[in-house]
Amino acid sequence: MSLREQIDELATFNDDPAAGGITREVFTPTYARALDWVAERMRDAGMDTRLDAFGNLWGRWSGSEPDAPRVVTGSHVDTTLNAGKYDGVVGVLGATDAVARLRADGFVPRRSIEVIAFAGEEPRFGTGCIGSRALVGQLGPDDLERLRDREGVSLAQALDAAGFPPDHVPSAAIDPAEVHAFVELHIEQGAVLERGGEQVGVVTAIAAPHDVRLIVRGEAAHSGATPMALRHDALVGAAELMLVLERLARESSSGTTVGTVGVIRAFPGAINVVPGEAQLDVDIRDSDLAARESVVAELLAAAEAIAAARGLSVDVEPIVVDTPVQCAPDVIAAATAACEELGLSYRSMTSGAYHDAMIMAAKVPVGMIFVPSRGGISHHPDEYTAPEQIDDGARVLAGTLRRLSA
Amino acid sequence: MSLREQIDELATFNDDPAAGGITREVFTPTYARALDWVAERMRDAGMDTRLDAFGNLWGRWSGSEPDAPRVVTGSHVDTTLNAGKYDGVVGVLGATDAVARLRADGFVPRRSIEVIAFAGEEPRFGTGCIGSRALVGQLGPDDLERLRDREGVSLAQALDAAGFPPDHVPSAAIDPAEVHAFVELHIEQGAVLERGGEQVGVVTAIAAPHDVRLIVRGEAAHSGATPMALRHDALVGAAELMLVLERLARESSSGTTVGTVGVIRAFPGAINVVPGEAQLDVDIRDSDLAARESVVAELLAAAEAIAAARGLSVDVEPIVVDTPVQCAPDVIAAATAACEELGLSYRSMTSGAYHDAMIMAAKVPVGMIFVPSRGGISHHPDEYTAPEQIDDGARVLAGTLRRLSA
Repeated sequence: MSLREQIDELATFNDDPAAGGITREVFTPTYARALDWVAERMRDAGMDTRLDAFGNLWGRWSGSEPDAPRVVTGSHVDTTLNAGKYDGVVGVLGATDAVARLRADGFVPRRSIEVIAFAGEEPRFGTGCIGSRALVGQLGPDDLERLRDREGVSLAQALDAAGFPPDHVPSAAIDPAEVHAFVELHIEQGAVLERGGEQVGVVTAIAAPHDVRLIVRGEAAHSGATPMALRHDALVGAAELMLVLERLARESSSGTTVGTVGVIRAFPGAINVVPGEAQLDVDIRDSDLAARESVVAELLAAAEAIAAARGLSVDVEPIVVDTPVQCAPDVIAAATAACEELGLSYRSMTSGAYHDAMIMAAKVPVGMIFVPSRGGISHHPDEYTAPEQIDDGARVLAGTLRRLSA
Repeated sequence: MSLREQIDELATFNDDPAAGGITREVFTPTYARALDWVAERMRDAGMDTRLDAFGNLWGRWSGSEPDAPRVVTGSHVDTTLNAGKYDGVVGVLGATDAVARLRADGFVPRRSIEVIAFAGEEPRFGTGCIGSRALVGQLGPDDLERLRDREGVSLAQALDAAGFPPDHVPSAAIDPAEVHAFVELHIEQGAVLERGGEQVGVVTAIAAPHDVRLIVRGEAAHSGATPMALRHDALVGAAELMLVLERLARESSSGTTVGTVGVIRAFPGAINVVPGEAQLDVDIRDSDLAARESVVAELLAAAEAIAAARGLSVDVEPIVVDTPVQCAPDVIAAATAACEELGLSYRSMTSGAYHDAMIMAAKVPVGMIFVPSRGGISHHPDEYTAPEQIDDGARVLAGTLRRLSA
């Protein structure tokens, strides 16, 4: 079965086919069946398979020195709601395909190569990357109770129902000394490669978000009876802030900062009332921590200045602050060499989205390989990467694994 | 019973006292009981009362020339949800009080004076001022079926249930030749008088809204994976438009234009997605029609320019376009003379909010008298006008009616 056919077949494990996309959330029966199917593909490629205490699926190709720190690759096969069929899946089935290619070529790895399908990269329980967080010891018993899905089911309950007793979760943690490197093949989920015309992205850094909620407060007032000069319009203050954020991100010293307001609310929310309150959920990301934090600081300073000038107040509520990751030089070098060997055009680039690799980087050297996303579309039924582009990615991954495991 | 006590007692007709404010929507049983109570107050003041075919309550003090075109005054006693106790009520009970004052002074009007409590100034059925619209013939059978409340009850059904057969509605229409003038006492619902320190506002014009929905469309994209330079962020385009609207209203030639975005929506509405669509409900008002339409035209031109610069598109959906009203010179003169006679400070001003007077102006000469609103707050439990300020308004109304009915 070709890689393309495998991706199409995995897409049939779907809890909501009528919506047009794929819905396969972690720890559901559909997810479990999909994982069984993926394990079969791993075994077809000559790997031994096992599920760890958090439900991460591992396939192992033992190397000639079984005790040498191993090379791990993989991604995830859970999805968001009504998603595409490539996000995560390309990195799991592509890794299995890479192993099969290396084996067919007669290659014998010195270091063992392991393929992983992380349990729960998508945020069914609010926080993403829970499978990789379990591996690096970032999920405590409190987290298992605290994290809940939109129906209120706790992560602990979901684990238990899926056959993974929550009190065993700590045993899923890896020993970093036993891992030489982690490398993840993934679709770009942006349009940088498409616009640049490169076939492959070699990721040098993974951006991380600093997210805050800004609550701008003014005075609600009758839209007809309140002259412009007497207003303290929270929403116009928020509008000014959004334009400041855009400018700060564009002018950031790193050249890679992005700033987004994806969620906005105005209260009371009637056409004839000047808004007395506006809330902005702000997402600022960069692989350059200093540049990102500089934008955050300048935005908050601008918020104070705008509030003072307009007779408003601004409160800042934290949402999340993650740490950007620099990819390991030897993983970058291996991926670059693989591209050059294959004659594929590539771009050294930052991953704007975060991935399990960002979490794994807390404990082990990491790298990532990107293939193009048509129109940059992801988390949507229209997500698309052509079969030959995915094959290119699997070939680059194979070349990277060959170098890292030698 | 003092005017203050009457206002407090009328506030006890309330469908949701637990919320802290007043909820008394038109055509409800509570509204009907409140109207009975108001009719008693009218009769206490020596007036004959009747309900017309739309449920408007009329009190009549016959003049010495019963066939002369009459002077009408009044407002409404229905409320929005969880509202204050002054909006509308001051203009009905204040009018009854003015009649009682004139009668106590031994005044005998030549023209009959009628006090009206309009049925449904607040928009239970989406459109406001339905009682006055019925009087001027602006409510056809189609409207009675089309207009529905938030539970889906049609205006026709609500009328019928309240004892007013919908097919009788046309008989509520007034003959404009029989009305000399309409004058409405009302709380300002803005903070202009409070800031200016005047006791009374003599309204010279009533602003009317031109409301549109602007739908800005760009491209939804991953907030991390999409560099600033590759974005077509609908919400940032909308933010730019909001600031343009503020500037246009502030710089408008009339000096009285107001522009507000009270409702905003961004889609898909996730913190990690660049908004692909933003909707703005825009309210632009002025008593100066040309100035208002100039702001509307400049805003729409700016929307096109912003869309072109940002790779967005903008659609414009109409919401409502009403015509501003110039108040009748003889009503303005009568109210002004009444203020001067009483030694009350007053300001000639525009009504930014619209009222039944704006609708009545389609057929008869109108004017309005404002009393201050503390903090400009209205449609809220904190709405407040002091008893002595309301008494001032009733005294000015009495002086105005005396002049207009002489």
